[in-house]
Amino acid sequence: MKEIVILGAGNVAFHLFKAFQATEQIKVIQVYNRSSSALKDFEKETSVTTEISQLKPADLYIVSVSDDAVKEVVDSIAEKNTLIVHTSGSVPLLDSAQRNGVFYPLQTFSKNTDLDFSEIPLCLEASNKKDLDFLKDIGKTISNNIYEIDTAQRKSLHLAAVWACNFTNHLYRIAEKICEQKEVPFDILHALIKETARKVQHNSPKDVQTGPAKRGDKKTIDFHLNQLDSPELKEIYTLLTESIKKEHGSKL
Amino acid sequence: MKEIVILGAGNVAFHLFKAFQATEQIKVIQVYNRSSSALKDFEKETSVTTEISQLKPADLYIVSVSDDAVKEVVDSIAEKNTLIVHTSGSVPLLDSAQRNGVFYPLQTFSKNTDLDFSEIPLCLEASNKKDLDFLKDIGKTISNNIYEIDTAQRKSLHLAAVWACNFTNHLYRIAEKICEQKEVPFDILHALIKETARKVQHNSPKDVQTGPAKRGDKKTIDFHLNQLDSPELKEIYTLLTESIKKEHGSKL
Repeated sequence: MKEIVILGAGNVAFHLFKAFQATEQIKVIQVYNRSSSALKDFEKETSVTTEISQLKPADLYIVSVSDDAVKEVVDSIAEKNTLIVHTSGSVPLLDSAQRNGVFYPLQTFSKNTDLDFSEIPLCLEASNKKDLDFLKDIGKTISNNIYEIDTAQRKSLHLAAVWACNFTNHLYRIAEKICEQKEVPFDILHALIKETARKVQHNSPKDVQTGPAKRGDKKTIDFHLNQLDSPELKEIYTLLTESIKKEHGSKL
Repeated sequence: MKEIVILGAGNVAFHLFKAFQATEQIKVIQVYNRSSSALKDFEKETSVTTEISQLKPADLYIVSVSDDAVKEVVDSIAEKNTLIVHTSGSVPLLDSAQRNGVFYPLQTFSKNTDLDFSEIPLCLEASNKKDLDFLKDIGKTISNNIYEIDTAQRKSLHLAAVWACNFTNHLYRIAEKICEQKEVPFDILHALIKETARKVQHNSPKDVQTGPAKRGDKKTIDFHLNQLDSPELKEIYTLLTESIKKEHGSKL
């Protein structure tokens, strides 16, 4: 049985906590957070503290706080011999004398959404081989998708995730607004959204691109641009269309 | 048993054909296409023809050809008393003396991808109530999602689908290219892509937006912009970020 302390009480911390508590090999023995209110979700199931000086000894400290706060929290940990990892996609492996690493679950987390953690890719990095192997063992208890990813690769993954998740979700929002204008239920698009995501699970998105930009169908593109009232949406439509044409070599 | 003739042999025609042939209430008695090569996928299972003058009498003609060709094909049908529908999202209800309608399945079709047609929304419209009811009966044999959608609504849906499917797939492609540059397998993003699509099945995309633009995290945004070499991608990144900020009122 390995013992973990989680520092932070946000969405990632919460889902990691739940995933570890469901294993038999890992026990989260304490959760630290600066403010006590966010600790309510944890205090029924483990020991909690708002004092970083009161951390219990453990096999691993997982720092899951906002990117800006990672370094400060890590520096405040008095225990110098324990492996410390953070869970951020954009913070590098810390350049400190301590044993440190990264334990980055690549997923979009909402507190109210249940997740199957076993499907979530864990991107791991550590300052030495032994710690990396230890992180892999820990990771395997909650996920079937373990990847060894260095800081430069993780930076790219974080950027790619903004396109594949945050920007994609905003395109869904734009589609929803277009539906709202004509009182069409957004539900009608659910199957299309699911299928579009499903297709790229087994194909390169390059090979399954469809639509007027890919076909070079200028008539439909003009028809769509005329329907958009907002200059901002017209501009995004035009840029994405040009980008698809460039990628797929269609001539309009 | 109702009898249908399909005109056209593309992806939509192919999937409609397969769906109808799997029912007990409908039989596709003939498929017409101008060129014979595309008819090979059909000729083992039904009668085929390349001569529009040779159409068999039927309860319904479904015209599933490219948007530009719809009107010409419909006008070439000699039979004037049979209900004729097209399957296009952007072509209006035809303004003709004939009984006509629209039978628009809102999905992205690839010939090599199997689809559960029962989940695909069918957007129906007809020039009279009796024909609309008939189309609903036909639609229900293959789909659980039947919608009555007029031409103006269908135009909006078609535009919304470009955002939610074609543009979204291109964002996946951009993410894939970012991964390729650092030799990171695109597979790592699969779970994130699936979860992003899953979340909006039960939530408005407005309520589940995450990421640096939503948070107003200027540091991460600048960090990402610096990573992008391509001026085109920088511009799309900036526009989508501004659009998210505008939608969610975050101040940078």
